[in-house]
Amino acid sequence: MSIERAPDFDFLHQLADLAGETVMPLFRRAIEIENKLEGGFDPVTDADKQAELKLRGLIQEQFPSHGILGEEFEGKDLDADGLWVLDPIDGTRAFISGLPTWGTLIGYRHSGGQSLGMMSQPFTKERFFGDGKSAFYQGADGKRPVKTRSCKAIGDATLFTTAPDIFAPDELKAFQRVEDAVRLSRYGVDCYAYCMLAIGMVDLVIEAALKPVDIAPLIPLIEGAGGVVTNWQGGSAFDGGQVVATGDPDLHQSVLDLLASKG
Amino acid sequence: MSIERAPDFDFLHQLADLAGETVMPLFRRAIEIENKLEGGFDPVTDADKQAELKLRGLIQEQFPSHGILGEEFEGKDLDADGLWVLDPIDGTRAFISGLPTWGTLIGYRHSGGQSLGMMSQPFTKERFFGDGKSAFYQGADGKRPVKTRSCKAIGDATLFTTAPDIFAPDELKAFQRVEDAVRLSRYGVDCYAYCMLAIGMVDLVIEAALKPVDIAPLIPLIEGAGGVVTNWQGGSAFDGGQVVATGDPDLHQSVLDLLASKG
Repeated sequence: MSIERAPDFDFLHQLADLAGETVMPLFRRAIEIENKLEGGFDPVTDADKQAELKLRGLIQEQFPSHGILGEEFEGKDLDADGLWVLDPIDGTRAFISGLPTWGTLIGYRHSGGQSLGMMSQPFTKERFFGDGKSAFYQGADGKRPVKTRSCKAIGDATLFTTAPDIFAPDELKAFQRVEDAVRLSRYGVDCYAYCMLAIGMVDLVIEAALKPVDIAPLIPLIEGAGGVVTNWQGGSAFDGGQVVATGDPDLHQSVLDLLASKG
Repeated sequence: MSIERAPDFDFLHQLADLAGETVMPLFRRAIEIENKLEGGFDPVTDADKQAELKLRGLIQEQFPSHGILGEEFEGKDLDADGLWVLDPIDGTRAFISGLPTWGTLIGYRHSGGQSLGMMSQPFTKERFFGDGKSAFYQGADGKRPVKTRSCKAIGDATLFTTAPDIFAPDELKAFQRVEDAVRLSRYGVDCYAYCMLAIGMVDLVIEAALKPVDIAPLIPLIEGAGGVVTNWQGGSAFDGGQVVATGDPDLHQSVLDLLASKG
């Protein structure tokens, strides 16, 4: 029987290595796309499923009492004290288009308070990770602590979102009130957007219709880097849905106000 | 006095090395942004200007009779037989946001017919280049020839563009006719989009309001990989403006028709 130690960054790196080994051979190769939604286009790759199964296997071996919430398969022991949240390929559209802006998301939260999160981009060999109190970047030039940048005025902010079509009509109006107020807005980078916020390159990410696996692993990174991430009402972002992240905590409330105001 | 040989890929690599050395120290650093357009936001970095000056210097040293058209400074001998087209940082918004989807664009065209083009991404250490007859990818795993993929039906196509706001109202309507017909559309990757088309990961790129420097260096790559790139009327894309590129030549006319039709 395994002795359960507390999960640490080393174990997250081990999981990220495993995911990378599994999905990279299929990146920029002709891969079979499966339509999850009839009529729509929700690309899911074999790579995604294979990687999730491997991550689940390693977690169950090392931490058999823990729960696991994944993108592709049914949840396991979701009311356990320790819960893993996994998305081997966040940004499947980027993945199938060859772009290096997708990532493997790995998160852990214990009911006692510990939280860990990592985004791994195996093509660029970058990792962004945090524990809610500190955050780090690891790339070709080694590992270093990272923090968000200061941005007090929304007129100075750079805003990222996936695409305007992720928003329902009312959400789009709210989003556009913010978009009209910022200095620069940019589309299309999935989890990479939150990583750029964590390293202080952008100020604001606003999204909607997120699944918990899309955002929960990023919370310890964003908060560890000094940012704030909540839902549009200011509550926990852990369950996904409408999400807003700001690098500068002082900017957060004014963005929430703008999203909530009647335009 | 230099003896003028014909430019070749080796010289393009030399230029790309020089640009990379100049701009990379400023990538993901706090850099001064200059507003070119009063009221608007047209980011220009010191890195961009410094790199262009260095590339111009090397070209003038090696090929003194050639013309040079660059992003940041006035054109030189634009009616010369040999013309260089340079954009050290295509995708300055990506650059200042920390994203690895910008690139250095270097193009050459001789009135006698020779053409060369390269996109260099120094953070991912990737180069995409071609001469109108063949095209190549060079990355961590070495150099290999590349070609576009087959995509006969627009309903199977993946479409890229920078962002909906690059289009004037009438252009947006035309773009949306195509967007409604494709399988998947995606925003926000600048020159990287044409490179993904050249390596067969996406099928279609549609843009507007391009400058010659944004597209001319990519034409020998796209055509060398087997794709077609023209303006929206089917003429040369060299002068920028409205541009459409398809990986599969058979798809090109139907996209032009859709752009031209009254919706």
